[in-house]
Amino acid sequence: MTKTLGTNELDRLAYLLGKLPGLGPRSSGRVVLHLLKQKESLMLPLASALADAAHNVSRCKICGNLDSNNPCRICTDQKRDKSTCCVVKEVGDLWALERSGVYNGQYHVMGGLLSALDGIGPQELRCEDLVKRASDNSMTEIILAMDATVDGQTTAYYLVELLSESNVSVTWLARGVPVGGELGYLDDGTIAQALKARRSI
Amino acid sequence: MTKTLGTNELDRLAYLLGKLPGLGPRSSGRVVLHLLKQKESLMLPLASALADAAHNVSRCKICGNLDSNNPCRICTDQKRDKSTCCVVKEVGDLWALERSGVYNGQYHVMGGLLSALDGIGPQELRCEDLVKRASDNSMTEIILAMDATVDGQTTAYYLVELLSESNVSVTWLARGVPVGGELGYLDDGTIAQALKARRSI
Repeated sequence: MTKTLGTNELDRLAYLLGKLPGLGPRSSGRVVLHLLKQKESLMLPLASALADAAHNVSRCKICGNLDSNNPCRICTDQKRDKSTCCVVKEVGDLWALERSGVYNGQYHVMGGLLSALDGIGPQELRCEDLVKRASDNSMTEIILAMDATVDGQTTAYYLVELLSESNVSVTWLARGVPVGGELGYLDDGTIAQALKARRSI
Repeated sequence: MTKTLGTNELDRLAYLLGKLPGLGPRSSGRVVLHLLKQKESLMLPLASALADAAHNVSRCKICGNLDSNNPCRICTDQKRDKSTCCVVKEVGDLWALERSGVYNGQYHVMGGLLSALDGIGPQELRCEDLVKRASDNSMTEIILAMDATVDGQTTAYYLVELLSESNVSVTWLARGVPVGGELGYLDDGTIAQALKARRSI
């Protein structure tokens, strides 16, 4: 911890803030000043929000979601479809799908992607749990919503293999032009995929 | 507060993080995930560091610096020169000067700059305190270290006027090519200033 802001309290706060993604050593000083200007409205509420979340939020034992209930609100929601399970890399992807508002089934958070480079094999991910859930009779479809990257696709193919003996249909997300995407700015791979998968209007 | 991350604790945390400079609603979700992965090493320490700093740090009654001591460590440091006072806009500028390591005098934090657009007049800033400090017999030089912006220069000229009846010499920072600055990338104003203020080697 470098001593720059004069006091131990501020140095420590800036050091910890600088570890957050998107904030570096310089911008963390700016954040410290911003916080000190709004002690009552932002700084103290943030301190208690951090402590609350750290103490109350845990990983759902069924799907791997982060929630203050365990099993989480999605797994215990009786209004949600129990026959469909969407497999995602991490909780951030689950949040993105929930924001879209079109999915009403279950989730399964893998906790990462297979990666030879990073040394992540199947035993690091929640693969066995997924097979167990797929063998449940109420489950009819598994949607693989992995990233369209090399690691994402490797993981998806691995899971297709792993689920081949289950009685569920395995699907994945459509590839194509993103909504609002301008053709001139899209990469060749996306255009090729969109063209191959073209549909009649 | 929009409900996106499923639980009240996480939504509230993301909402508060999104208010920090440099973080928006999207990146705050990423920060929440990052924090939850490092509860013991980052999240709980950050919560207590925020609370500690909020409770212990206050504005120095002499110079306006932020410190857990009041008067602050700089004002009470017997090894520092009492005859020079560097006037800065805000505490961030004081930190920048301290980082440079070449200044060993006192500071005076104005708390902002005069700005007609933002409706900030002399009564909003700590001008009277500065005049009072300048009238102290031990003070011989006031260094105006304001931004080289329109508001910064307006404030500096106003302070020169205000201090004209004091017995202190008033100086300001040299203008010129910044260290590491490439001429081709510098603005015309800086080059003109550097040329006008050229010095024999």
